[in-house]
Amino acid sequence: MRSINIIVAGFGRVGRAFCKVVEDKRKSCRERYGLDLVLRAVFKSDGGIFSDTPISMQSGFLSAPLVIQESPDWKPGLRVQNIIGDLEPGVLVECTPSDLRTGEPGLSHLTAALEKGWHAAAASKGALVLRFKELTGLARQNDLQLKFSGAAAAALPTLDVGIQSLAGADILGIEGILNGTTNFILTRMAEGMDSEQALKEAQDKGIAEPDPTFDIDGWDTACKLVLISNTVLRTEFGLSEVQVEGIRGISHELVLKASRLGKVIKFMGKCSKDEPADPWKLAVGLALLDPSHPLYGVNETTKGITFYTDTMGSVTVTGGKSDPRGTGAALLKDIIGIYADR
Amino acid sequence: MRSINIIVAGFGRVGRAFCKVVEDKRKSCRERYGLDLVLRAVFKSDGGIFSDTPISMQSGFLSAPLVIQESPDWKPGLRVQNIIGDLEPGVLVECTPSDLRTGEPGLSHLTAALEKGWHAAAASKGALVLRFKELTGLARQNDLQLKFSGAAAAALPTLDVGIQSLAGADILGIEGILNGTTNFILTRMAEGMDSEQALKEAQDKGIAEPDPTFDIDGWDTACKLVLISNTVLRTEFGLSEVQVEGIRGISHELVLKASRLGKVIKFMGKCSKDEPADPWKLAVGLALLDPSHPLYGVNETTKGITFYTDTMGSVTVTGGKSDPRGTGAALLKDIIGIYADR
Repeated sequence: MRSINIIVAGFGRVGRAFCKVVEDKRKSCRERYGLDLVLRAVFKSDGGIFSDTPISMQSGFLSAPLVIQESPDWKPGLRVQNIIGDLEPGVLVECTPSDLRTGEPGLSHLTAALEKGWHAAAASKGALVLRFKELTGLARQNDLQLKFSGAAAAALPTLDVGIQSLAGADILGIEGILNGTTNFILTRMAEGMDSEQALKEAQDKGIAEPDPTFDIDGWDTACKLVLISNTVLRTEFGLSEVQVEGIRGISHELVLKASRLGKVIKFMGKCSKDEPADPWKLAVGLALLDPSHPLYGVNETTKGITFYTDTMGSVTVTGGKSDPRGTGAALLKDIIGIYADR
Repeated sequence: MRSINIIVAGFGRVGRAFCKVVEDKRKSCRERYGLDLVLRAVFKSDGGIFSDTPISMQSGFLSAPLVIQESPDWKPGLRVQNIIGDLEPGVLVECTPSDLRTGEPGLSHLTAALEKGWHAAAASKGALVLRFKELTGLARQNDLQLKFSGAAAAALPTLDVGIQSLAGADILGIEGILNGTTNFILTRMAEGMDSEQALKEAQDKGIAEPDPTFDIDGWDTACKLVLISNTVLRTEFGLSEVQVEGIRGISHELVLKASRLGKVIKFMGKCSKDEPADPWKLAVGLALLDPSHPLYGVNETTKGITFYTDTMGSVTVTGGKSDPRGTGAALLKDIIGIYADR
């Protein structure tokens, strides 16, 4: 049995769901993988819980949003950087909100972790899309692992399949429905609902954020595409190099016309080349799919990705829960993956 | 750069395709994975090619079926077991025909390899379904890897996804369209062709074997199901414990009726439980799928598998070339995977 220290940075919906998944899977992690995950600290933007002893998942702070600040071990103003050098290194789990301008606070957390000998598993995207090369380089240089399934479509295994399942094959192109909110809106529109009604239903159901810009303007898809491309195709793209067109201006008539023709309009991210020797191009926008396309039937909040290869044909993965628990489960998978190889 | 000795047992369509893939990917294996794959010996049932020097892939024997016996290094009667102890251990690639009664000659090859310190990658199913526990135990005991993506739906990544991508989740059920020939026949039948015509077309196209028993009676699907279940669900099933019903007696009327109702009939392997605490049950047979089923649109020779989980929802993989080259690519993937972890 191996005891692994875990620090969770960010305790919103994802951080909380991750802690709950770890709690639910404590027994099977020990039995199947020989890993005893020990929660040592949890941080929010205004402080953290930390003491000399591990945090008990049973202590009740997981369920109630406010109780964390009322814990006897709550330290106002405490930051990841203050304590990470003092603990036996394990895995930093990064779940803070994605800031695409500064990458903070995730960037400081990930940098501190990788400098102090900690592996990292990230669900937040900002730091990774802004500083992909530096962060992955820092991990490699220190013989550590930086995993980010949680930031690259979460429970849909985009990176595992691209790296491990297609090892040895040449990838000729990638396309994916990578965002649940926009796929939900387009699914409803194809059923006859207009785009505003569809967005409202998505918001009412907690699928879309109150400010849906990140999703419907395509930035969420673009971030995932950058992470997938940089990892699987070994590119070094930044977000500004992706051609991004959101779904804001989509005509309802266009969606219905596609339906009448037996086709569907999907909002997709694509990695493509004009000619084999050309550099990769990344684009996010609407695409018209025939029934024979492997992502044709991917509806509602479901996501999917297709890899086109030379020796293995095309391989498509669809599904994977699009909710905080699915992301929490993807973070746990990454932690198990880190120690499976070591 | 790491130099890896490779022995290929079985030089039919798969063995030949594997050698061709290795030849085509020589440069990228060196550059991307730091692996220099060195072909040391190739065996057929009546002898093998082996000498003190590696086999040059350019020597021309890859393209012409008969030339292998005319090579100056051809040794009639030579077997894997005669030489495997004399070489620096690498990976045995097992591509002999699957014999479901004896598991031979694959069983002797795999046993010899694992006893002499060689990892193994298998595309043949016989030895694995008959002696799963013994062979995986032997590998573990000797700290070696026994991989068999090539035997468990080849380029469709069933095992990688079940083991790595879903690590930490509890799998609640698995169902897959695991055989290209039967899916092709059912696809044609849904389009109006009768089952005999459909089988004949599959045979004419080289999809079905001249004796299609292994596919249409469900044994190919059952073998893959056993390998997937034993690996991903940690069961210890043998082939005799699978409830198998082939498609031989399928009524055309039934297929057409499903189409009229907007559904499809698929030939599937399933791992299920009646109650969570019950043992797993494996079954192969026909299933009626709604359009909302993730495998509904998997047609022609395409394969697919769906994993139902607790924390990640359902995850489905479809595609992956159903031909010898796809299997060759899956064998190469397994070899890369063996050394990626070490």
